[in-house]
Amino acid sequence: MTGGGPLLGKRLPHLMYGGDYNPDQWPEEVWSEDVRLMREAGVNLVSLGIFAWSRLEPKEGTFNFEWLDRIMNMLHEGGVSVDLATATASPPPWLSHAHPEMLPVLADGVRLWPGGRQHYCPSSPIYRDATRRLVDALATRYAKHPALVMWHVGNEYACHVPACYCDVSAHAFREWLKQRYGSLEELNRAWGTDFWSQRYSSWEEILPPRRTPTWPNPTQQLDFMRFSSDELLECYEIERKVLTERTPGIPVTTNFMRFFKPLDYWKWAEREDIVSDDVYQDPLDPEAGMRSAMAADLMRSLGRGRPWILMEQSPNRVNWREVNVPKAPGQMRLWSFQAVARGADGVLFFQWRQSRAGAEKFHSAMVPHGPPQSSPTWREVVRLGGELRALDAVCGSRIRADVAILLDWESWWALELPSKPSNRIQQLEQLEAYYRPFFEANVTADFARPTDDLSGYKLVVAPSLYLVSDAAAANL
Amino acid sequence: MTGGGPLLGKRLPHLMYGGDYNPDQWPEEVWSEDVRLMREAGVNLVSLGIFAWSRLEPKEGTFNFEWLDRIMNMLHEGGVSVDLATATASPPPWLSHAHPEMLPVLADGVRLWPGGRQHYCPSSPIYRDATRRLVDALATRYAKHPALVMWHVGNEYACHVPACYCDVSAHAFREWLKQRYGSLEELNRAWGTDFWSQRYSSWEEILPPRRTPTWPNPTQQLDFMRFSSDELLECYEIERKVLTERTPGIPVTTNFMRFFKPLDYWKWAEREDIVSDDVYQDPLDPEAGMRSAMAADLMRSLGRGRPWILMEQSPNRVNWREVNVPKAPGQMRLWSFQAVARGADGVLFFQWRQSRAGAEKFHSAMVPHGPPQSSPTWREVVRLGGELRALDAVCGSRIRADVAILLDWESWWALELPSKPSNRIQQLEQLEAYYRPFFEANVTADFARPTDDLSGYKLVVAPSLYLVSDAAAANL
Amino acid sequence: MTGGGPLLGKRLPHLMYGGDYNPDQWPEEVWSEDVRLMREAGVNLVSLGIFAWSRLEPKEGTFNFEWLDRIMNMLHEGGVSVDLATATASPPPWLSHAHPEMLPVLADGVRLWPGGRQHYCPSSPIYRDATRRLVDALATRYAKHPALVMWHVGNEYACHVPACYCDVSAHAFREWLKQRYGSLEELNRAWGTDFWSQRYSSWEEILPPRRTPTWPNPTQQLDFMRFSSDELLECYEIERKVLTERTPGIPVTTNFMRFFKPLDYWKWAEREDIVSDDVYQDPLDPEAGMRSAMAADLMRSLGRGRPWILMEQSPNRVNWREVNVPKAPGQMRLWSFQAVARGADGVLFFQWRQSRAGAEKFHSAMVPHGPPQSSPTWREVVRLGGELRALDAVCGSRIRADVAILLDWESWWALELPSKPSNRIQQLEQLEAYYRPFFEANVTADFARPTDDLSGYKLVVAPSLYLVSDAAAANL
Repeated sequence: MTGGGPLLGKRLPHLMYGGDYNPDQWPEEVWSEDVRLMREAGVNLVSLGIFAWSRLEPKEGTFNFEWLDRIMNMLHEGGVSVDLATATASPPPWLSHAHPEMLPVLADGVRLWPGGRQHYCPSSPIYRDATRRLVDALATRYAKHPALVMWHVGNEYACHVPACYCDVSAHAFREWLKQRYGSLEELNRAWGTDFWSQRYSSWEEILPPRRTPTWPNPTQQLDFMRFSSDELLECYEIERKVLTERTPGIPVTTNFMRFFKPLDYWKWAEREDIVSDDVYQDPLDPEAGMRSAMAADLMRSLGRGRPWILMEQSPNRVNWREVNVPKAPGQMRLWSFQAVARGADGVLFFQWRQSRAGAEKFHSAMVPHGPPQSSPTWREVVRLGGELRALDAVCGSRIRADVAILLDWESWWALELPSKPSNRIQQLEQLEAYYRPFFEANVTADFARPTDDLSGYKLVVAPSLYLVSDAAAANL
Repeated sequence: MTGGGPLLGKRLPHLMYGGDYNPDQWPEEVWSEDVRLMREAGVNLVSLGIFAWSRLEPKEGTFNFEWLDRIMNMLHEGGVSVDLATATASPPPWLSHAHPEMLPVLADGVRLWPGGRQHYCPSSPIYRDATRRLVDALATRYAKHPALVMWHVGNEYACHVPACYCDVSAHAFREWLKQRYGSLEELNRAWGTDFWSQRYSSWEEILPPRRTPTWPNPTQQLDFMRFSSDELLECYEIERKVLTERTPGIPVTTNFMRFFKPLDYWKWAEREDIVSDDVYQDPLDPEAGMRSAMAADLMRSLGRGRPWILMEQSPNRVNWREVNVPKAPGQMRLWSFQAVARGADGVLFFQWRQSRAGAEKFHSAMVPHGPPQSSPTWREVVRLGGELRALDAVCGSRIRADVAILLDWESWWALELPSKPSNRIQQLEQLEAYYRPFFEANVTADFARPTDDLSGYKLVVAPSLYLVSDAAAANL
Repeated sequence: MTGGGPLLGKRLPHLMYGGDYNPDQWPEEVWSEDVRLMREAGVNLVSLGIFAWSRLEPKEGTFNFEWLDRIMNMLHEGGVSVDLATATASPPPWLSHAHPEMLPVLADGVRLWPGGRQHYCPSSPIYRDATRRLVDALATRYAKHPALVMWHVGNEYACHVPACYCDVSAHAFREWLKQRYGSLEELNRAWGTDFWSQRYSSWEEILPPRRTPTWPNPTQQLDFMRFSSDELLECYEIERKVLTERTPGIPVTTNFMRFFKPLDYWKWAEREDIVSDDVYQDPLDPEAGMRSAMAADLMRSLGRGRPWILMEQSPNRVNWREVNVPKAPGQMRLWSFQAVARGADGVLFFQWRQSRAGAEKFHSAMVPHGPPQSSPTWREVVRLGGELRALDAVCGSRIRADVAILLDWESWWALELPSKPSNRIQQLEQLEAYYRPFFEANVTADFARPTDDLSGYKLVVAPSLYLVSDAAAANL
């Protein structure tokens, strides 16, 4: 390990500790108790207001920041820094009610409706304009707030809606293809459209790979995956651009989800100041430790070796598996330190206080239902906070690996398209098959792109690298 | 057992015996043979014309009752009383053709079409008005008919379409919510809409829980189940109101389906004069006897101890399982007497004469395909009719239980919503787990609501009572 | 075996050998190499341009035949005859873009989009008119071409879209029903519409069996299967009529798919000059040999004893199973000779040259990726070509069977409708159960319709003949 300085510099020269904090879901009477408990637990950072849009902008263009002012101030006074959310992950009901054409549509034409979250077409100008407006108002108001140390854009992009097949998306897909191919002739060549009489005679004929009688064109599918990752990245970029202009010194992140197929995290990480990750291991999985190690190594690699943040983990059980077993005593602590050992400079949770209502009311939190003092989870949270406080020296450490494992999202997408010699070859299983021996032998591995400078590694492995660019082939 | 008088009083002071009778599906030549065979089998009651709408009203507003007059008279002359159907379970083709907006829509936007049965949106004013008109005409015409002893409203409400997600339903849902919550602020509080930015700023924004990117709001789902049960109950009530006005002394029923999740049978039973049930046990199920006992105890409990009617069972095999095994010799008789022993005052079948065509032509009937005399099923039917005739003394008996098992439909709905510690806890399994030991020990159990007066029971059990009202909590 | 003359007479008095050839998917530089390799392999027939519509008619009404002229001439000069495709199996993008109403719709209302192939409603006048126009132009241009020896209409009709439920199809279904039943009263009688209140009061009320709340009317379903087979047959007939007028002496075929439920191949085969079949056995299936024998016997029977053509098989592995194992060395040769021994006069492959792109690029071909000389598959192809050349004497042989197995498509459809005593009785399993002992005892069997003259057979078996016409009953 070699030092590189704390991620947030002087703003927060410690290992970060805390969680998602949604005061908008609680009466203000609870807030002061929250801050008091945060101090008790050693919390120094919260991700604030990730789903607060409908509270921040209760009607189109009408903003209500007073409550956020109050909690920002309270947190600052309590010594808790803020990773302020842009609150754009879940549009408020009034937006999709006024503009139902912004709702996403599946490949079979089924429209997704509000009632959950993430109900937006990534290409929707309605959604994009509304996020730009909200983020601009937020950034303007809190640019100088002393609690603000980081921006948290959106939330788990693509986790429920990785792609949209509506007419708006079809139009955006065509524009993206024009950029990629320049001419229709070149697209016809690249897609092999002479097969099955698919040759296009005008751009307008091109569609997303909606439900077809049989397998759609594989390159059409692959390009649509590239496009869908890029469209969401564009959503992120719209917000980031506003933030960079309004608050130049404040780093920007969005929370990743380990090895998440729909988004090309290499491209995404290039647009982030800090890489952060959400890790929800199944306590029943005997290889959970190996898998979280692998995710940690990916995050460190995405950040080009810089420290990263474990942005979300659960203090105890989650709510979304068929059966949600609790973590064993000490398991949360173990996995927290594993993240730090593999380069994380922050350990945060979803979430600070367990929900009273909604789809996640059975998801554990740092402050559980009932009195915290009688909760083993709370005691583990407090203990971990204390332990991390003693590790300032670790903050900013860098890790060096001699092994690189190649991972390329486009190759992943292409590998798992149908109509192959075998559909059973899956990228993630292949990665694990190669990672497992290194993990068991205590050999640290980085992940790398095929086009990266690999000269510093003693060993490079390429599990099922199905598709390589000319540049990657030359590099290898 | 204590006596309470026959259910239908002097109109039919015997155990009822018979089945669904659909003369509209047969040429009139067959009718006299039917009545002759009914007498032979000891039939004293038939449920008449459950799917006769397209025969009764072949065009909008044009009624044809002549054929029904004739068979009503023939039955009366043959000594067979009539449980007259309101015939509204399956709208005729002309209705949905003229008004396709009355067709139901699933959560993913798929419309259900005619060709089967029950193809109506429960909130549809088109459907509701048409049923009111038909029932009014029927009740007016047969109010004084001497064969009429009971009304059979609809048929197995909700068995195929428990809920509709169309725009008409969305509007009705909003009106129902206004009644329930009074103000939008109160709805926002109850639904916890601050979670995931779901706060509503106008009633118009609220929708049924249509297909969402991820779990919709759980209270939205729960309220939609309450609403959906209530909307169908309103359909029933529209018909019942007409009947009560036109034929004040004639009792009204609709046939239930054992432990049927979509309908809150406690609320429904309050609006019935007689509780009746359809019981289709799988002869392959080794616990079929326990399960039908449990259903019988529920029906007796729904009727607050009054006798109930086994409105439908199959004389032999059914047609709708993947493999439909016949009942063993004597099995139908055994389960018939089981129903009587647990409080039934009537044993009826689906159906009198086996269909020549349609989706149920392989469903057994009292009169099978082929000559009845050579059919073991027919012989069992005749024998049972004779045996029941000898049991007039049993008619109207009451049963007393020392054990109550709590069952609340709203709690059932809430218990089985997703995002729980475990999705494997299912209400019906829990009920059976508690019922089984009582059944095996020959201890009779009632079912009861948590708000009922439970002081008369020696033991009260509450299997997975997940949700209780304040009143229920106080009562318990 | 008795002789009957070669299928194509003097045009091609040899066993046919070759495969699908798609020069439109390759630069013209490759073509001369193709013809050279064809000669090396003994290829004497290719199915040309099956998916060439978008190359032949790049815009509506604008035809481009120059490239086809060139390759037709090159093939002729190389001694390779042409089974010329009508190229209508996959409409070009411009057609469905201009007329999206021609796209097929599933029973649940989901529309199928272009991007694969076969994306047309069989009843669409748009599609039908466009095919008529294309085939007329093709037949006019190549009527006198010396390479032309056969017409290949469409491709694997119905393999992805056996039926369409759109409004255009609904209209066509009504017209078909008017032809079948003459009067609405007769339809109501035949469909048993008094069951579940389904009686129609006007033709306009009748719909395809779209998604219903529960089982739709079984006769409605059965008639819709009859109709759907007939609608595609009408598509075929439109093309065949043009071909018969323009090129009276050239035989017409379309490629079948063994025991393919959606199409009544008895009716189809009556409209073909030559029966041809596509056979893709799974090399992992231990009964693959029995199954291809059975398919061969069906094809011979469909052609009333005349020789048939094995139009497609794979030289080695396919691409569309979950795991696609290669054929064992010699397996392709064995199955090829099996076809000849059971009456085939031609052995062809999909396809000549393995695709560079598209959904089938991993499907083996006669000329594989890479240099053919180093490929075992190519060597097997060349060897088989040489062996077949030595078998001119076999050409046109007839086979006589003493056993007939009855197969009726309408009965098959009816047998597998839902709502039966058991859904596990499946026609194909029943046929195999009866065919297997004959196969193992080396007893040749024909397949026959229940209405055929069966007097020449020593044994007739009727596996699960669920439905018979009056004529069939009399005949049996």
